[in-house]
Amino acid sequence: MSPAADARTDLVRACYRQPVSRTPVWFMRQAGRSLPEYRAARGQGSILSAIADAPLAAELTLQPVRRYGVDAAIVFSDIVVPIHAVGFGVEVEQGRGPVVAQPFRSEDDLERLRPYDPGTDAPHVAETIRLVRRELEGTGVALIGFAGAPFTVASYLVEGGPSRTFATVKTLMHSRPALWAELTGRLASMAIASLRDQIAAGAQAVQLFDSWAGSLSPAEYARFALPATRAVLEGVADLGVPTILFGVGTGELLGLMASAGPSVVGVDWRVPLDEARRRVGSEPALQGNLDPARCFAPWPVVADATREVLASAALASGGGGGRGGGGRGGGGGGGGGGEQGTGHIFNLGHGVLPETDPGVLGAVVELVHSETARP
Amino acid sequence: MSPAADARTDLVRACYRQPVSRTPVWFMRQAGRSLPEYRAARGQGSILSAIADAPLAAELTLQPVRRYGVDAAIVFSDIVVPIHAVGFGVEVEQGRGPVVAQPFRSEDDLERLRPYDPGTDAPHVAETIRLVRRELEGTGVALIGFAGAPFTVASYLVEGGPSRTFATVKTLMHSRPALWAELTGRLASMAIASLRDQIAAGAQAVQLFDSWAGSLSPAEYARFALPATRAVLEGVADLGVPTILFGVGTGELLGLMASAGPSVVGVDWRVPLDEARRRVGSEPALQGNLDPARCFAPWPVVADATREVLASAALASGGGGGRGGGGRGGGGGGGGGGEQGTGHIFNLGHGVLPETDPGVLGAVVELVHSETARP
Repeated sequence: MSPAADARTDLVRACYRQPVSRTPVWFMRQAGRSLPEYRAARGQGSILSAIADAPLAAELTLQPVRRYGVDAAIVFSDIVVPIHAVGFGVEVEQGRGPVVAQPFRSEDDLERLRPYDPGTDAPHVAETIRLVRRELEGTGVALIGFAGAPFTVASYLVEGGPSRTFATVKTLMHSRPALWAELTGRLASMAIASLRDQIAAGAQAVQLFDSWAGSLSPAEYARFALPATRAVLEGVADLGVPTILFGVGTGELLGLMASAGPSVVGVDWRVPLDEARRRVGSEPALQGNLDPARCFAPWPVVADATREVLASAALASGGGGGRGGGGRGGGGGGGGGGEQGTGHIFNLGHGVLPETDPGVLGAVVELVHSETARP
Repeated sequence: MSPAADARTDLVRACYRQPVSRTPVWFMRQAGRSLPEYRAARGQGSILSAIADAPLAAELTLQPVRRYGVDAAIVFSDIVVPIHAVGFGVEVEQGRGPVVAQPFRSEDDLERLRPYDPGTDAPHVAETIRLVRRELEGTGVALIGFAGAPFTVASYLVEGGPSRTFATVKTLMHSRPALWAELTGRLASMAIASLRDQIAAGAQAVQLFDSWAGSLSPAEYARFALPATRAVLEGVADLGVPTILFGVGTGELLGLMASAGPSVVGVDWRVPLDEARRRVGSEPALQGNLDPARCFAPWPVVADATREVLASAALASGGGGGRGGGGRGGGGGGGGGGEQGTGHIFNLGHGVLPETDPGVLGAVVELVHSETARP
């Protein structure tokens, strides 16, 4: 345990399954188009240029903290920032996501992926983090940094943009396994460089987004995604900050994801947290897993769904494989005995949908806090 | 066992987990744009008008039988045919899917869903089936009819078209549960009418497509999708043809889907068949589950993937919960002892992608047949 343990935020303590004053909450894509103040501050410029403007990015990072009272901010950035910074040729289209003009196809394209040096290639990321940390000093709100996991970043590079079938990237990995290993190895190195830079600048936890991993079968994940993901987590292990590994539709992959060694495994809404606990084992904390689509229902429905997540988190909180801890009902956030915390970070199962009413998310934060407050 | 058991095709016998001469194969969306003869015959007309032209629809149904040597044809039709036929107002856009001009929003829209009478509303479906059965007489190739499961059809009606988040339909089901029950009850009645008509005309098995069920949590599926799905299966149970229940991303739902009572549960590529067996119990047969995206890789990769599916099917073939049957390796299609067959229908985990090389699918059929042929 580090000497600074007492100064740890609830978010960081929950990542390590340590006791917390109440279950910490944040929302993936909490800084975004669902907030009127975001739309006002962002204006019409591109996402990548907003990210490159550190004071603006810091402001966008902080808006959801003020609005929702969440326990963590996540730096306003994008998983393609490193590959954009080394000149691979990628843009982020509003409402669509990353789009690559010349997709990755062969060995020749490896040249377009030179090593990423955050200090010279994208110094604005660290600058944003320093600005945000200054504002959050003493608030107990943690700042999360992040990177894209190699498979998900590679899928954008190979497909050229968002995909429904991932046919091109799957064909490449199966038919050119050595090239695939080289590609994902380079992307792992870029993610490590990015995360180390963010942690050095003040990020207190980091999340690895493997958003599209759920398109893979378990055998494909084990062979083609896990090695580079594990390399990223190992590449920041010496820095002493917790790591969160997240994907969507990953029910069959949760055990493999846990084997990569993250502090926390993110779970979407399809797998109840107590079932997720059985799959990940007793070690990692769990993050999730309210369905973002549920947030459009009337408040009593959203409140029930929030309490269901807390109840399954309580069931998942036992150390011995997820049975015997907590006890269902009422969202008791206490959980396991002794020094063991529930190891639950409340979040959505995927990002906030742009049409979401911010008032609902604020009410979710209040409800989680009040239901899990320890006397 | 029916007196006509001896005349059963391998497809039908596999549905009942009876011994087969070799594992039957067919491909979801086998009749479609991946075939040049399909593109030539279909011309530029709409999908719904091609479906309404029984001789054309019969030809499109039969093309993949000639091309691939599959063990089943599936009638060329669409899950929205009944709702289109009663005048709800839906079109099928090429490459996009069903699009509804005025989405379902309230009680008033129930009026647009009057009972479906196939004999007068869409007599062409039965006519197509009769034409196809005549051509398939004596070939051992089965003809499959189908309908959309109530949740998936409702999701199109409520969302107005394909959706990534299903936020509108989820909001409706949670906030208006009585209206939702009425809507899905009507859709169940329409599906029953459609399937009974298809079976009367000669369909030897029927598949219920619940393609988007995987967007639901297990609790949502149990409450909002399962009742109407079970009603459909019960509504055709007296007719003595096997039923197949299919969805995508349904790993968490397989046990619930089995509880609806289908003869066969369809599985996508994310769940190995032996793991699927543990979830569905010993009763239903399993259909699947080659990843359609895998079909773009070089042939040795596709062949390996095909053998992996056969090996996991062999592991899944034991009657006692999927352990102890078969034995891994070499795609032994024999499986359990006595009169128990493997209960496996080889298929893709989702529909054929339009860019698929037909030659690859033909080679998959040959490989499955040769690897599983009984002496």
